[in-house]
Amino acid sequence: MSTAHDIETDGIFIKDCWYAAAWDYELLDGKKVARTILEKPVVIYRGESGRVVALDDRCCHRAAPLSLGRVEGDDLRCMYHGMVFDPSGKVIQIPGQDMIPPKLGVRSYPVVEKGGMAWIWMGDPEKADPADVFDYAPLQDPHWMGLPGYIHYDANYLLIVDNLSDLAHMAFVHVGTLCDSESYAFKTRPVAIERLDDGFAQERWNMDSDPPPYHQKVIPNRHGKVDRRNVARMWLPGLFVLETMFAPAGTGAEKGHLAEGTRQYRNVQYMTPETRTKTHFFWNYLHDVQEDRVNIARSLYDSMWEAFHQDKAFIEGQQQYLDREPDHKLLAIGADAALSHFRWLVGKRLAEQKNGRAAVQAVA
Amino acid sequence: MSTAHDIETDGIFIKDCWYAAAWDYELLDGKKVARTILEKPVVIYRGESGRVVALDDRCCHRAAPLSLGRVEGDDLRCMYHGMVFDPSGKVIQIPGQDMIPPKLGVRSYPVVEKGGMAWIWMGDPEKADPADVFDYAPLQDPHWMGLPGYIHYDANYLLIVDNLSDLAHMAFVHVGTLCDSESYAFKTRPVAIERLDDGFAQERWNMDSDPPPYHQKVIPNRHGKVDRRNVARMWLPGLFVLETMFAPAGTGAEKGHLAEGTRQYRNVQYMTPETRTKTHFFWNYLHDVQEDRVNIARSLYDSMWEAFHQDKAFIEGQQQYLDREPDHKLLAIGADAALSHFRWLVGKRLAEQKNGRAAVQAVA
Amino acid sequence: MSTAHDIETDGIFIKDCWYAAAWDYELLDGKKVARTILEKPVVIYRGESGRVVALDDRCCHRAAPLSLGRVEGDDLRCMYHGMVFDPSGKVIQIPGQDMIPPKLGVRSYPVVEKGGMAWIWMGDPEKADPADVFDYAPLQDPHWMGLPGYIHYDANYLLIVDNLSDLAHMAFVHVGTLCDSESYAFKTRPVAIERLDDGFAQERWNMDSDPPPYHQKVIPNRHGKVDRRNVARMWLPGLFVLETMFAPAGTGAEKGHLAEGTRQYRNVQYMTPETRTKTHFFWNYLHDVQEDRVNIARSLYDSMWEAFHQDKAFIEGQQQYLDREPDHKLLAIGADAALSHFRWLVGKRLAEQKNGRAAVQAVA
Repeated sequence: MSTAHDIETDGIFIKDCWYAAAWDYELLDGKKVARTILEKPVVIYRGESGRVVALDDRCCHRAAPLSLGRVEGDDLRCMYHGMVFDPSGKVIQIPGQDMIPPKLGVRSYPVVEKGGMAWIWMGDPEKADPADVFDYAPLQDPHWMGLPGYIHYDANYLLIVDNLSDLAHMAFVHVGTLCDSESYAFKTRPVAIERLDDGFAQERWNMDSDPPPYHQKVIPNRHGKVDRRNVARMWLPGLFVLETMFAPAGTGAEKGHLAEGTRQYRNVQYMTPETRTKTHFFWNYLHDVQEDRVNIARSLYDSMWEAFHQDKAFIEGQQQYLDREPDHKLLAIGADAALSHFRWLVGKRLAEQKNGRAAVQAVA
Repeated sequence: MSTAHDIETDGIFIKDCWYAAAWDYELLDGKKVARTILEKPVVIYRGESGRVVALDDRCCHRAAPLSLGRVEGDDLRCMYHGMVFDPSGKVIQIPGQDMIPPKLGVRSYPVVEKGGMAWIWMGDPEKADPADVFDYAPLQDPHWMGLPGYIHYDANYLLIVDNLSDLAHMAFVHVGTLCDSESYAFKTRPVAIERLDDGFAQERWNMDSDPPPYHQKVIPNRHGKVDRRNVARMWLPGLFVLETMFAPAGTGAEKGHLAEGTRQYRNVQYMTPETRTKTHFFWNYLHDVQEDRVNIARSLYDSMWEAFHQDKAFIEGQQQYLDREPDHKLLAIGADAALSHFRWLVGKRLAEQKNGRAAVQAVA
Repeated sequence: MSTAHDIETDGIFIKDCWYAAAWDYELLDGKKVARTILEKPVVIYRGESGRVVALDDRCCHRAAPLSLGRVEGDDLRCMYHGMVFDPSGKVIQIPGQDMIPPKLGVRSYPVVEKGGMAWIWMGDPEKADPADVFDYAPLQDPHWMGLPGYIHYDANYLLIVDNLSDLAHMAFVHVGTLCDSESYAFKTRPVAIERLDDGFAQERWNMDSDPPPYHQKVIPNRHGKVDRRNVARMWLPGLFVLETMFAPAGTGAEKGHLAEGTRQYRNVQYMTPETRTKTHFFWNYLHDVQEDRVNIARSLYDSMWEAFHQDKAFIEGQQQYLDREPDHKLLAIGADAALSHFRWLVGKRLAEQKNGRAAVQAVA
């Protein structure tokens, strides 16, 4: 069932992995989510049994959008001429016709739910192992709380990955929201950058600084100095975790001592390509304060929403430039180590994928 | 005067036939209609003598839009530098210049008015025979009344033709407007499909059913069961008539007996390509009730407007899919017999047209 | 640093000349103007010393828009990762990195201010001579006053040049604003057209006519007949001056006698290509009445704004047509002499530019 377009996008998107597709809250009340992922229009819905189903969002008959359809049990009825598809994508009813040709159907995509997210597998379904789904403990732990968010970007997903690969941008883009001062870029550097087989990790400390605005809004003592630690990790295809700690300044946090008043956050961000120039950006910013927890989560959500839109102006500006002059060479600086490693990993995976496809075709 | 684009569109649009171009009401009060037809921008206006004129909508001098011009008698003055065109497209005045080069002019298109519609001929003007204009008696008969309508589609005209080729879609798209129940798709089938040289005809009965909502709104007894007959006919390039009868259930309508309380409708729909992915859709839904006839016409107009917008969501969704993956193969089902025949006829005409052009060029 | 795109646009835009880039008023209060010129995104700002600087509007590091940056002295800081560029485009600070690779930088464009306008040189900087900047005395003379204006066009700049090359269009486009009557096109003609090496000049008289509406609004005697003279001059790449005189009719203005009550205007219009289908249009309409001068300038500004938008409908309509059928041949008339000469000059310059580039490459 591969089309010319499928083969073309093999050189562009990593196919055999789980992508964030839809937050739980998007599937409430039988809502059908019409979402293009890796340039494939998909309809995602929760069937009446509770199972989440993802199908190609066009009927095999006349290409009507299935997202205009109706959920019946776990099946989906195309509301143009009434054909019914089961969760495997097979046609099980054609109104006015008794015989159903066995070939009639659409592609169904493996889906797994974890951490409040429906994850989709766009590649070879044989290789889809639910054990590989991104699993981050705080998302399953009721002690942590956050409000999940979604932003649409008019930019390639790797430009967002780049953004998160160098936290120095906080000093310029996010003063007033996530960062206390521009000095963050001058006086702090990554302690170490770990180059992993499937991503990277880096740690950055900012000692004896003011609490940044977003943090000030949700703490009782807004003026005490803090020691801030950020531990950032990124995995293929574009999954990011940032663990942030604010400890009262000088209480030895860098030696592992957690003084009273230390506060921690857990932040996940998932970049799922819609097309080569558009991205679905999902995030959840978690805190573990038990009092007034919904209001704190709401405040953090609003701060992030504001901060991510600060990023968006830069990132979409980059994309507009790349659209105009795709061959222009960018110049790397020292801070690009993590970014460069990740882009190298992506290139390697895409090359392997292309060679794998060639090998399969040679056999067939 | 053929351009590369003219030759290109020979493989896409049937040229030598009459297309619906503008309703009478669109030409009231000297209004100039700027309308692209078969990818040619045309200006259409009614001259002071009453004659309807259609010219290329760009001045031969500097390509200014003639639809920004001024009607003077039956002529049109370009309001950029003031050149005047007569109904044949010839320039008859150049302000500030005495000599008018005889070649100066724009293309004029044959126009014929019939049934409240101005019909245009985009092909070889030598072949334009007014006797071939679509002629449907109820449109000329004051006994019948309707309010003509227009909708713009972001879709190829054949997707609208397809829609009208299989009335089973009424059961899913139009329950709540044109159809009483989804059972229409299950218990009724076309009685017969006639494959014509230039279109098709089919008939479909729905016995002992509730009157559908749009009909209920304009009849005194909303609850009596009815026997419904639809006779649908489609002709090249995309002209559709639907004759609908609602007879009191069980009164023998299927045997030709018209019982008291039987009501009939006459519906015309014309699909005129704007471009290969956009369509001008004209319709008129006629009734023959003599009391309160304007209000009934208005109610039917509103019902159709609502129903056609139900179709539009599906049809424009199809087009979006085809834009993305133009080579994807759709799978036919039993109900596609009329649709397949019509698309085959279109393909045949386009091939003949292309061969005709080749023959002409070989001679020249 | 030439890109494939630079070489491509050599055949489209004249590079080695000064283009109008931004009015003084656009650079007030440290505003950064993001403006694409000859298809190059540029950021223009006034540094704290008063100097106007123009840089490529994308950081050499990750292509973020520099127009989102911050002016510091005469330098510009990219607000993504904090790199600082001096007015020559050189990077002089990288936060968190001590060594600055000497190659790191962006292109800086020569800028000269004159007549309230910042002029930019997009070509070879070696050839940029400030003495060549367009210099029109009334713009420096406090006796004359006008309010500078800007309009964005969705059209190639030459279509605006065309418009200004034939003032007969005033009779049709601008009756009600700039012209008293359609007879202007019939009874007046250019006295003489001078074909210059770098443009053209032409003069046109309209004797014993009513004052046009825009002029009536700013004179005490609205009803006296006038003799109107227009002297129009156009220079490469697209710089236009129109000198207009209204003398009381029959007082011998055509013989050089300036009777009491004669009024003069000085009008400049600059066409700067944004892209091949979009244009920055700058204008300033000057008068020399010393009483109530701001209100008169405001009235003239408003009249011009209205009149230029009358043109815009035609000119953008032309562009839409050319987008659709770029190869269609337009037909010249007698009034196109100036227009044809100017387009011939542009073609000649573009050919020279291309040959120059080829010669340089042959040597290298």
